[in-house]
Amino acid sequence: MTAYDPNNIFAKILRGEFPCYKVYEDEHVFAFLDMMPRVTGHTLVIPKVPARNILDVTAEDYAHVARGAHKIAAAAMKAFKADGITVQQFNEPAGGQVVFHLHMHVMPRHDGVAMLPPASRKEDAKVLEENAAKLIAALKAE
Amino acid sequence: MTAYDPNNIFAKILRGEFPCYKVYEDEHVFAFLDMMPRVTGHTLVIPKVPARNILDVTAEDYAHVARGAHKIAAAAMKAFKADGITVQQFNEPAGGQVVFHLHMHVMPRHDGVAMLPPASRKEDAKVLEENAAKLIAALKAE
Repeated sequence: MTAYDPNNIFAKILRGEFPCYKVYEDEHVFAFLDMMPRVTGHTLVIPKVPARNILDVTAEDYAHVARGAHKIAAAAMKAFKADGITVQQFNEPAGGQVVFHLHMHVMPRHDGVAMLPPASRKEDAKVLEENAAKLIAALKAE
Repeated sequence: MTAYDPNNIFAKILRGEFPCYKVYEDEHVFAFLDMMPRVTGHTLVIPKVPARNILDVTAEDYAHVARGAHKIAAAAMKAFKADGITVQQFNEPAGGQVVFHLHMHVMPRHDGVAMLPPASRKEDAKVLEENAAKLIAALKAE
């Protein structure tokens, strides 16, 4: 497997070198909105440790990402009045991975609404800002 | 959200009332091959606690499932000479869930090989038996 590249876009987001719509952060993980959401409220949870994917991280750090996804999922159900949640986590190009810092997708779902294909379109900044605010409010209310 | 149904098929598997190709078990989780695999070696990791999905489980129990997936992923890479891993976890019908006991899909992937659509076909028992043996051997060698 290719080594971790510290200049991947999510590493830059973690270092504050690239902007993002942050929704949550704790000692172990960082969560922000996907700029090209497949559904409204599509959120990414990433570990703070440099890790390419599930094959390059300790079980405990993977568990931290899962705990973050669990927290986001509950809040996203309320923030977006969702009917369900789809969690996906892709590893290596064969597994669907495009950005090579481990990330877990948390996607609020609504009955009868299909997900867009990956990276279909960049969302408007105003929409992302509003959705981040909704999710942050729901996280605070937990 | 609908309450947990203790007669769902995975609950029956956990209680030994329905057969499965078990590959791993510890205090918290149980893992077995999907009978209708989307890829060779498609494995499901489930918590032993009765939980419908991510919205009905503690963060810690969700983390246990993730640790199980992490372990299966590493072994599946070797057992099936995979190029990557796709992890998916569906919650509620809107989120893609069909069986209502929390489960995380761990799918070994190969470059250029698409996943079959969900529940496309039941795999031959002999193939499942062989794949379970390969995965168990890789787990033991970890």
